[in-house]
Order: sequence, then C-alpha cells, then structure tokens
Amino acid sequence: MSTLTPDILSVLEKQAIELPSWAFGNSGTRFKVFATPGTPRDPFEKIADAAQVHRYTALAPSVALHIPWDKVSDYAELRKHAEDLGVALGTINSNTFQDDDYKFGALTHHDETIRRKAIDHHLECIDIMDATGSRDLKIWLAEGSNYPGQNDMRARQDRLQDSLQQIYARLTGEQRLVLEYKFFEPSFYHTDVPDWGTSYVQVAALGERAMVCLDTGHHAPGTNIEFIVMQLLRLGKLGSFDFNSRFYADDDLIVGAADPFQLFRILTEVIRGGGLNSPDVAFMLDQCHNIEDKIPGQIRSVLNVQEMTARALLVDREALDAAQTANDVLAANAILMDAFYTDVRPALAEWRESRGLAADPMAAYAASGYREQIAADRVGGTQAGWGA
Amino acid sequence: MSTLTPDILSVLEKQAIELPSWAFGNSGTRFKVFATPGTPRDPFEKIADAAQVHRYTALAPSVALHIPWDKVSDYAELRKHAEDLGVALGTINSNTFQDDDYKFGALTHHDETIRRKAIDHHLECIDIMDATGSRDLKIWLAEGSNYPGQNDMRARQDRLQDSLQQIYARLTGEQRLVLEYKFFEPSFYHTDVPDWGTSYVQVAALGERAMVCLDTGHHAPGTNIEFIVMQLLRLGKLGSFDFNSRFYADDDLIVGAADPFQLFRILTEVIRGGGLNSPDVAFMLDQCHNIEDKIPGQIRSVLNVQEMTARALLVDREALDAAQTANDVLAANAILMDAFYTDVRPALAEWRESRGLAADPMAAYAASGYREQIAADRVGGTQAGWGA
Amino acid sequence: MSTLTPDILSVLEKQAIELPSWAFGNSGTRFKVFATPGTPRDPFEKIADAAQVHRYTALAPSVALHIPWDKVSDYAELRKHAEDLGVALGTINSNTFQDDDYKFGALTHHDETIRRKAIDHHLECIDIMDATGSRDLKIWLAEGSNYPGQNDMRARQDRLQDSLQQIYARLTGEQRLVLEYKFFEPSFYHTDVPDWGTSYVQVAALGERAMVCLDTGHHAPGTNIEFIVMQLLRLGKLGSFDFNSRFYADDDLIVGAADPFQLFRILTEVIRGGGLNSPDVAFMLDQCHNIEDKIPGQIRSVLNVQEMTARALLVDREALDAAQTANDVLAANAILMDAFYTDVRPALAEWRESRGLAADPMAAYAASGYREQIAADRVGGTQAGWGA
Amino acid sequence: MSTLTPDILSVLEKQAIELPSWAFGNSGTRFKVFATPGTPRDPFEKIADAAQVHRYTALAPSVALHIPWDKVSDYAELRKHAEDLGVALGTINSNTFQDDDYKFGALTHHDETIRRKAIDHHLECIDIMDATGSRDLKIWLAEGSNYPGQNDMRARQDRLQDSLQQIYARLTGEQRLVLEYKFFEPSFYHTDVPDWGTSYVQVAALGERAMVCLDTGHHAPGTNIEFIVMQLLRLGKLGSFDFNSRFYADDDLIVGAADPFQLFRILTEVIRGGGLNSPDVAFMLDQCHNIEDKIPGQIRSVLNVQEMTARALLVDREALDAAQTANDVLAANAILMDAFYTDVRPALAEWRESRGLAADPMAAYAASGYREQIAADRVGGTQAGWGA
Repeated sequence: MSTLTPDILSVLEKQAIELPSWAFGNSGTRFKVFATPGTPRDPFEKIADAAQVHRYTALAPSVALHIPWDKVSDYAELRKHAEDLGVALGTINSNTFQDDDYKFGALTHHDETIRRKAIDHHLECIDIMDATGSRDLKIWLAEGSNYPGQNDMRARQDRLQDSLQQIYARLTGEQRLVLEYKFFEPSFYHTDVPDWGTSYVQVAALGERAMVCLDTGHHAPGTNIEFIVMQLLRLGKLGSFDFNSRFYADDDLIVGAADPFQLFRILTEVIRGGGLNSPDVAFMLDQCHNIEDKIPGQIRSVLNVQEMTARALLVDREALDAAQTANDVLAANAILMDAFYTDVRPALAEWRESRGLAADPMAAYAASGYREQIAADRVGGTQAGWGA
Repeated sequence: MSTLTPDILSVLEKQAIELPSWAFGNSGTRFKVFATPGTPRDPFEKIADAAQVHRYTALAPSVALHIPWDKVSDYAELRKHAEDLGVALGTINSNTFQDDDYKFGALTHHDETIRRKAIDHHLECIDIMDATGSRDLKIWLAEGSNYPGQNDMRARQDRLQDSLQQIYARLTGEQRLVLEYKFFEPSFYHTDVPDWGTSYVQVAALGERAMVCLDTGHHAPGTNIEFIVMQLLRLGKLGSFDFNSRFYADDDLIVGAADPFQLFRILTEVIRGGGLNSPDVAFMLDQCHNIEDKIPGQIRSVLNVQEMTARALLVDREALDAAQTANDVLAANAILMDAFYTDVRPALAEWRESRGLAADPMAAYAASGYREQIAADRVGGTQAGWGA
Repeated sequence: MSTLTPDILSVLEKQAIELPSWAFGNSGTRFKVFATPGTPRDPFEKIADAAQVHRYTALAPSVALHIPWDKVSDYAELRKHAEDLGVALGTINSNTFQDDDYKFGALTHHDETIRRKAIDHHLECIDIMDATGSRDLKIWLAEGSNYPGQNDMRARQDRLQDSLQQIYARLTGEQRLVLEYKFFEPSFYHTDVPDWGTSYVQVAALGERAMVCLDTGHHAPGTNIEFIVMQLLRLGKLGSFDFNSRFYADDDLIVGAADPFQLFRILTEVIRGGGLNSPDVAFMLDQCHNIEDKIPGQIRSVLNVQEMTARALLVDREALDAAQTANDVLAANAILMDAFYTDVRPALAEWRESRGLAADPMAAYAASGYREQIAADRVGGTQAGWGA
Repeated sequence: MSTLTPDILSVLEKQAIELPSWAFGNSGTRFKVFATPGTPRDPFEKIADAAQVHRYTALAPSVALHIPWDKVSDYAELRKHAEDLGVALGTINSNTFQDDDYKFGALTHHDETIRRKAIDHHLECIDIMDATGSRDLKIWLAEGSNYPGQNDMRARQDRLQDSLQQIYARLTGEQRLVLEYKFFEPSFYHTDVPDWGTSYVQVAALGERAMVCLDTGHHAPGTNIEFIVMQLLRLGKLGSFDFNSRFYADDDLIVGAADPFQLFRILTEVIRGGGLNSPDVAFMLDQCHNIEDKIPGQIRSVLNVQEMTARALLVDREALDAAQTANDVLAANAILMDAFYTDVRPALAEWRESRGLAADPMAAYAASGYREQIAADRVGGTQAGWGA
C-alpha cells in the first residue's frame, strides 16, 4: 500500500517545474569551465535536451529562455520546435551583465544612454514574450559596486525604480515582471537588490503584476528561507522560485543536494501559504552542472523537488495544529520530522509506472542512448555556455 | 588649524545619543554575569551614572528606560531626578521575554490571554510615556521558536500585526512605535521579526508614526548594513538606531570597536540620506559591558560615534560625485578613505575645551573620583541587571 | 523484512552515547532561563533522570559529570547510585568560567595565582575521576577576550600549553585529557582555542592520551564538519564528540534537529575512519533543552543519533567506491542519498521490541508516569541549572 | 614633526611586498571578464607593469609568476628583463585547476596517471625556480568535490601527502614549498585543504622547508585571522601571506579596502610574533582588479599595507603590556586604537620625498603618461587573463 494517498497524488500530478535552457550549456567558475561532449550548440538543441527531462519525469513541461543567449531569428519556429517535443517556452530572462557598457550598472546607471539601452533590452525581451507566449519577464539585477564610495547607492535605487516603471508599463495582458534579489556576486561590496525587502519595495511600487523571485541560493549564511517564503506569500508577492542548493555562497548545486531538510521546510511553507500549484508562483530551477552530466542533473533535480513536495504533503496538519496549540515542542517537531523521514520514493516509482513512465527515470535516461547520440551528433560548432 | 570646519562643528554640536539605562547594570552571557562594585541598584542610580557620560561629553542628553526593569512608583520624580542631573528621560522599551507566560510567544501567541497580557504591557508602557514625556515606544520582539514545526509562523505574523495595531491605536500626539528586528537569539530556529523587510512591512501597515529600529548587531554575517540604512531613509521609515558592534553574533560590544570603518560607512549613509540630526531618527546605544567598566564604556561609545560622524562629515561630496560620475573607482574610494583616515581627535578635543569640557573625557572621568565614590556608597541592596 | 541486516544490527547493538548531567537541569539564554516542574535538584536526581533515557533506548549507559555543579561529598555513593539505576559515571567536565577570578582567563591567565587555581581545579577533577572510575577529563576553555588589544593572544597560548602539561602529567593509567574547541562565546573577539587546528597542536604537544573534542555546534558558518572528523580520525586525535545542532551559533539544539543530513554525513565519515564503536572516540550529547521537556528531549536525541548511524551503515561502500573511481558524480551522490533517504525507523522499532524494549521510546516514557511523579516529588529545594 | 620615529622608518624601509604577475592581466567573475586597453599580452609586459608599482612606491621589488600562464622559452631573458626594470622574479605558483584532466583532482586524484602529471607539473615548476632563482613554490590546491559522496576525502588526504612528499623531495638549497588553504571555491562541497589546520598538518609532515600560506580572503565568515597569524608564527610555519580583502567570499578586493582595522590587527600580530621583515614570511598580494585600473590598484594596495604597518608599529607595547597586566580592558583597547587612528600618511609622504620619490604615488603614476602609452602601444595580440 502506498504511503501517498490519492489526494496527495492528485496534487503531485499537477506539479510543474520549469527548466532553464542555460542549464544544458556549459558553466563553471571563474577558474575554469569544463566542456562535455554532446553539449548543445543552440537554443534548439537546449530545448531538445530539456524535453528529455520532461519525457522521463512528466515534471518539467516548460523551458525558460535567456536573452541574448537564446536569441533566434524566428521565435515561432522555436516555439513550434518545443511544442513538437512536448514542452512549452516559459519565462524570459534578461541579461544586463555581459555587455561592456554595463560594467558599472545598467538599470541603475547614472549615464542615461546606458540606462536607456538596458531598458530597451527589457522592452525587446517583452517583444520576445509576445512571440513566445511567455508570461513572465524575470530580471536578475547583477548590478552593484565593489568598493565603498564607488557609487551612490541611494540614487541608483531611485533610478532602478524609474527603469522598472518604464519596463512595467510595457507589459500587457497576463504578463508579469519578476524581480530577483541576490546577496552578493558579481558585485562584492554592494548589490542593488540584495534582499527580499528591497525586491519587495521595488515591485510593490510598480503594481499587481510585479512580483519577487526567490532564488534559494541568494541569501546570507543562516538565513531562514522558509520564513521569507511565508512572508512573501502572506504579502501576495511571491512570483517565482529559482531552485538550487548551496553550502557556501551561490554555489548553484542541484536543489536538495546540500540540505534536503531545508528544501522540505520551504515546500512545507509553500503548501501552508497556498503557493503549491498556484498560478501566482512559478517553480523553476536555476543551477549549474559544472562537473556532473547536465540532463541527468536536471532529472535528479526535478525528482528531488517532487520527492520533497510529497514528503511535505504528508505532514499531518491536524495533529500539528494540536501539538502547536498545546505548546508541545517535541510532539510538533516530531510530526514534521515524521513526514520528512518517510520514504516516498517507492510510492512515486509506482505512480510513475501507473502513468506509463519508467520507475527509475535516471536509469531509463541512461539506458536510452540519448547521451551517446548527442555526443556523436553534436560535433563542430560552438558549445553553448554563459556567453551564448 | 582644525581639520573640522565651523560648519561641521555646528552639525556636531547638535548631535545627541541616547543611553540605555540597562547599560549601567550588570550583564553577561548565559555562562556568567560578572558583578562590579558600584553597580546601580535602581533606576535613580542608573540615571545618575548616565548623567556622568553626558557631563564629560555633552553628547548624551537622554536616557532610555526599560519596563519593568525601570519601573518606579512615581515617574514625575524620576523625571525630575534626571532633569536635575542634566538629562532627560527618553525611549521606553518594553519587555516580553522575561515572564514565564511568554515562553512560547507574547504579541504573537496563539493563546489570547497571553497575547492580551502582552498588549496590555505595551499600553502600560504608553501610560509611562505619557508620564515621562517620552516620544518613542520601542518594541524588540524576542519571540520565535527553536524547532521546525514548533509554531505556525504565518499565523504568528498575522497576530503580530493585530497586536501592533492595538498598541499603535493607543499612541497620541507625537508618540511613535518603533519596531526592532533581530536575526536570531533568544530563538534559534525562527524569529518573528528577523529582518528589516519584516519590520518594514509590519510598521508600514500601521501608519506614519510607526518606524523601524535598526540595531547594528542584528544581521546575518556579511550583511551590508549601510545599504539598509539607505533604503529605510529612502522609504522614510528609519526610526532609530541601536548602536553596538560585533564580530560574530549579537555580541553587543562597544560601537565602533569591532569594525570602525563599518560605523563610518553607516554614518556616511545617514548623512547622505538626511538622517543626521533629523527628528525622525533617534540615535541610541544598546550595548553590554560584560567585562569592562560601564560608565567609561559608555563614554568611549558616544565618543566613537562622534568621531566617526566627524569623519563622515569630512567626505568631499562634490569630488565624490565627480569621481562617481567618471566611473573612477579608485578615485571615488580614495575620497571616502581620505575622510575615514583623517584624525579628527585633536580637533574634537579642541572643540570640547572651547565648550568648557575636558579635552579627554575618559581621563577626566577617571580622575573625578566618581567610580570610587559609587563603589563606596552603593553597598547592600541588589545590583541592577537584566532582571531588574 | 528489515532494511537493517544482522551485521548492521550487531554494530548498532554496541552503540553507546553518553548523556550530560546538566542537560537535565534548567538552561536558557542570557535573556531568560525558564524553570520546569520536576527539574532535578542534585546530581542524584540528574542521574535518575538520565537512567530513564537509557531505560527506554538502551543507548545511553553513562552520564558525564560537571565539576563543581555535580560535586558530592561521596563519589562512591554517587557511583553506586548510578550503577543501581543501570548507568555508569562517565567523563568529568571542568569549569573555569563561573568563578569571579576567571573573568579574564584561567589556564591562560597572566596572573600566576589564578592560573594555579585553575590548574588545581583540574587536578581535583582528576581526583574525582579516580573516585568515579571515569576515563576522560574534558576541558572546554571558555577563555578569551572581548576587545582587540585586551590580551596578548600569543602569551596566552604558551601559558595554556604549560597549564595543560601540568594537568596531563597528573593523569594515570587509561585516563585521557580531551580538549574542546569553540568558535566564539562567551568571548566575542578572540577565543583561546577557537578551532580544531589549535586544539590539535595543543594536544599533540602533550602526548598520546591527549585528544580533541569536536562539538558539532562550535564552528564558523558553512564549515564542513565531516571533513574535520575525517582529518582528526586520520591523525588519531578524535577523542570525543559533543553532539547537538544549530541554525546560527552555538544554539545547542537537539542533535539532528537542524540539519539531519549533516549528522548523517558526520556519521558516515566516522564509520569511514573507523571511529564507530572505537574505544578512542567517546560519543556524547551536549545540548540545552531551553523550552522542551528535558528527559524526552534526551530520548529524542539518542534516537536521532541511532537512526542516522543506521542510515550511514546502509551506505553501499562497494558501489560507492566504484562510482567514485568512475568519476560518476551523480551516481556516487545517489548512493549516499539512497542510504540517507531509507526509512530505518520501522526496523529499529522491531529491533527494540526484540530486545524487550518498547517500539516507541517517546510514547513509552510519556506513558510511564515518571514525569508526573518527579513533578509531584521534587518540591522545594533549588532546581539544578548551570550554576549548580 | 613626524608621527613616525627614525626607528619605525628604518623598519618600514625594509618592507617588501611581492606582486602577482596575474594582477596585471584581466580577471573577473564567472559572469563576465571585462577587458581594458593596455592590458599586458605576455609575461614581459606584466613585469613592466609591476615595475611601475615599485618605481612609485619602493615597496614592491619582486614579481611572482604563475605557471603555465607565465611560461617563456628563456627564463634567463625574463629574469634579465625584470632586473633591468629594477625588480626580481619571485615565487613560482603552480596551476592544477585549468587542465581538463584535473576536473576531479590533481595531487589528490585516484587516477595515478593524472596524479603523476600533477606532480610532474610541480617538478617542472621547480626547474623554473632553478632558472629564475625563485625561493618559493606556492601550491594553491583548487581540488575538492561538489557533492557529498562524490569523493573519498580521506584517501585524497593521504594521496595529497604522498604527492607533496614527492615534490618536497625535489627542492634544493633554500627552496621552500608553501601550501595555501582556502575555505571553498571552485569546489562547493569539500575542499582538500580548507583550513590552516589541514595545511599545517600536511606541511609539518614534510619538513622544515614546508610552510603554510595564509590568504586573507580564504576563511569562513567571522574567522579571527590575526589569531591564525599568531598561531602559525608560534609554530614557526607561517611561510607567506596572500593579501587581499573581502566582504563576502573570496572577493579578492584591494587589501585593506573592506576592513582596514582587520589589516591593522593582522600586521600588529605579525610584528608581535616577529614576522615583519623576517626571511621566513613572504608578503604578497593576490587580488583581482575586475573593474578598477590594475597598476594604480596595485599601487594603492602596497600603500595600504605600508600605512597599516606604520600604524601597527606605533602601538605603544610597554603601555599595552601594562594595561593588559592590569586587566584594564578599555585602556588596553584604547592604546591599540590610538595607533590605528593616527594618520601616518603625511609622515609617509615626507619619507617618500626624502627618498626621491613623489609624495603621492597615485598622482605621480597618473601624471606619468604610462597608462596612455600602453593603451596606445599594446594593440593586437591577446590580453593576458587567467587563461594565459
């Protein structure tokens, strides 16, 4: 008999996790980017790889694009390509950190020419959203400074608001602007959107379709991330997750790999706040597979999210409420831990088989020959990476 | 010729730093509280000690009280006592962490009886404010939980807002509510107001006279505190500072002792944002002199704030703007560092002498015999500490 | 069929975790120590409580004492009392942080009279070890300073070595000296033994029977603790563990509560390095049950260690070696995670029943009436805490 | 009258700080490396730039090389080139992080072929040392793993020791091996030499001419670095410094830029332990000028070290000892702070002029036209960066 009830399975059935196209390209550290055979050379190949993840998991029906890395001449063609492979195009991510002009800022820059260019880049991204049918424009602001005194943080904050307003004004229909925050890197003294509070006050000043993006790797050491999840859901401003995990800084490891219990707590709070399967909250991965294989790395990642969601759904809410009300610290904690420690993997394997999927997606992918095929096929050209 | 211009001196002239009454009582760690001869035994003696700090520095014209530690039967008498000694009564600090009832919460508690008691305690604090003429009610919320699952963080957040609204509604005239945030301790899993964002959204929902208190020791490792100062000033919500310094956690060391350059950057941002000598921003100390003498510890502290303010006032804003606009990173940083590295101590000593104060307040206090006097006089009774 | 093989169960059978007597007394933060009915008032009652933990788990056959908190006039009587209750007396912990003389140091103090007193205290502890039959003298050095310049760190390090040599020289037979390190607290600038490196070089200079104690809560944020476990085992210098867990600083929460996966990794490295059931490595708890019930808090703790040890024993070493040799990052990680995610609790419950214990120790203790009994019996007197 | 006595000036006169050749090439983050006009294209041009720093400061008489980035066909020619420009060739730095073979380790690798290659690379570095006359071989071990289970940390530690022994055995005469440690990056789960303790036990097992390298940016948040300086000097194992500064991780900012007081404390401890101007301790920079000009960035850096050394030399040791012995916390701290707050810049400017140097090296370099010259001359070719 399964540990997972039909009710829980019907919730899990709806779970959808968006994959980032760039996870299939090469990535690395400032010290070295290792290449691997079979790495995609263009957005079409990236999407083909992403479709493999969905094929074996039924968890990843859409792919986020990054502009300009994923620029193509014909987005309708790209969309068609994706749909043919069973996935959709998702969030459009802008890039204001790789152009020489942006060395000292983009949406916050004091030079109006450069700021104009950065705003226009976002307007172009919205044009692409119109073409791809994407709902969300995600802005990660890599801007900041390396030395005290280098910049006027206050003026930058005001210019940021002005830039965002111009971008927000261009959105139509269901389109949204999602603003990511990050503790540090690539700037090492100040970052213009370093914490959820700053992201919140910036998007709250824009309007209803502006939301916060929470990247699980973008916090100071020790930060209680599930608290922030709770608060943003309470404020109606949690727009999306960028899932990954970390031991130190923005390590961008596989979600759940560094601290599975933290992922469980985050998902427990998502459920508590009504964020699971809510149209308001987009669940995405944002990871770097620097040394491990990329496609199975993504498969492992979506499975981790699914397994932790299943565990979080097992929390006995009624018993938990009772223990909390009785101030029974040990009992309340035990109820949570009981859900976390329950092994849901056999039940999820069963569920996959009931849907015609392989019980073990990692093994099924490995046995499929896809890896060998792309290694053989993708010869020549330039492997995709963070520059392309 | 002085390094400090008349303009700068006239700004410094107005600087006022509030002292916490509890800094003059004993404090320590969970491992040990060391006692010292001469420690005050009641609020009257604490205020007498605080007045010594003002006497030698002209920087500390008011004293914050902590209720119930500083409860007296007649606040008019306490006020008169303070005024006779040349100081005023300042901020009233509430306490919801030392009553057995508050073991699992106070303003956030699910038990309405306990929550009512905590709210009533704050209403009593406002009664005291009416009697003392204090403007600010400062709430540090020690509430939280130690184990995942122990509490429903979301429901607590909602109850907190309700409690604060009831308290806020009782304020009259110029009175304000100031809500402090703290990263952790005494709770070790979640804290109900752990960051500036939470404090901000809680007070923003109350109204104009609700503000955020920034304690410089209450952040995650690596947090850029001057950025938060900038942001809160930008939002018009920086109500007060609790100054202290830290190497690790909430160490409550003498302000400026651990990282003087950080204090300089904070004060530079205060000036940039119009917070210096602004009626909106109260400057307070909140420190523990666990092993050093308390009165000279406070003298050293207010001098540190003054010296760093003087350095921050030396920043050549015009040159800084020019270097920033030119993207000249090294020049902009050098302009800031030049102010920081300038030794303002001789000029401040001169300035003190011109006002009839001793050039060296530490030496003057040491020579005054006050320390020996209180050690001889204050025999018997119970030394004040965090319990009284 | 059980997830745990007979081989694994026979290893688990030998597991022994020492309890700290002080865990049964009151503890808290610098802000408040909450009292609870039934708290022991003397070492005899503490041992009685500790024996309850062993009774329901068969995991905790010994109790560590803290001198002077657990001083008695007749240690033979205390030993007999313990043995009658089915437990032994274990490690002797010294205390150089609660005497007024030790405000500025003890084994490191520049005042030879105070340093002599501190050394003599340790010699007295060894006398007690002779009486109790304890093997280990554990020294946690709370010494350090709060302000740069306050102390000469180098001279203190040399005096520490001299003090330890005098203490070490007094040991006889199988007796050992175990030196604990701690990142910070109660000192907030420098701590005389802040890291494993310092503890190692200090004990390495003493001799074979001097070892390092690793407290899992005593590291800087982000520290890879299992790496230190590996290194100390490699060097033959891991003498003991103080188990607890933390989200922020030295939170002293229940072991495994904050990051169960970290506990799993630590135990995996213990097994890898031959430290499990080794006579060289003592496994102890060192926790504070500030808000939860103490006896069930300790029961939960030893169960957590047992459960994680069982999971760690499940790691398929052969498969892991093969994956590591093949540089198959995802496969190697999956083998580890598979062990971690396996639910060993049913098998451990079975095993307990096979030994005549209750399947659920927490429930069995709760149903025993012991808690109600001590609450009724232990009226009057002074509850034990960190001062007694 | 100068703040710096002739005695202090004669100590400062001997100060020498080694520059890293790679500081003059381009560097950046994983997100972007910005290029600048005039960037050197080969080791000869790097050395020419380094010579500029020495020319204006008389502080930087040698240049460290990085192999293979600075490989040339004729090291005698490179040496001659350097000497003609008034500088010497210094430490040789090896590189085991940029070859595809080293993806999973080098000196620690389980594959003996790869490990052999890594050892041979170091033997080649020693050949180069023979040719350049360099004393020190510095090894920064970028090795580690990203996921728990990926590697057998213990076996790697043993292999590392074996590899180092083979390298150490090749050293002759005065040559030394210096082993750097680093908290994390580029590995994100475990690093093979993550802390000073590991570096110490590895080099202590080698012999007298093996030492530890302390990079000031390679520690966990909150680490008391000056304590480590003290300990390594006490153990006779502080071989060299890599100076830089950081707010967050290994930010590699200009030394003294993030926390000047920390740099002061480090240099105070260097002096206390006899490390200043000692032949045992090499002082080097290791920084990245990602967004600021490189040559003036290095000039600013060596000036920062000099200024902080001067301040540290001002500490009144006799008064400090007296205050420490009297347990006068505030007085002892004040003596330290007095030295830190003294503005030594005018005296150092005078001293420079007395030696025929410009009072303001930054201004003198800017006025020299060198920057414009190299921007005009260095056209074509490939700018040096971390790959060349």
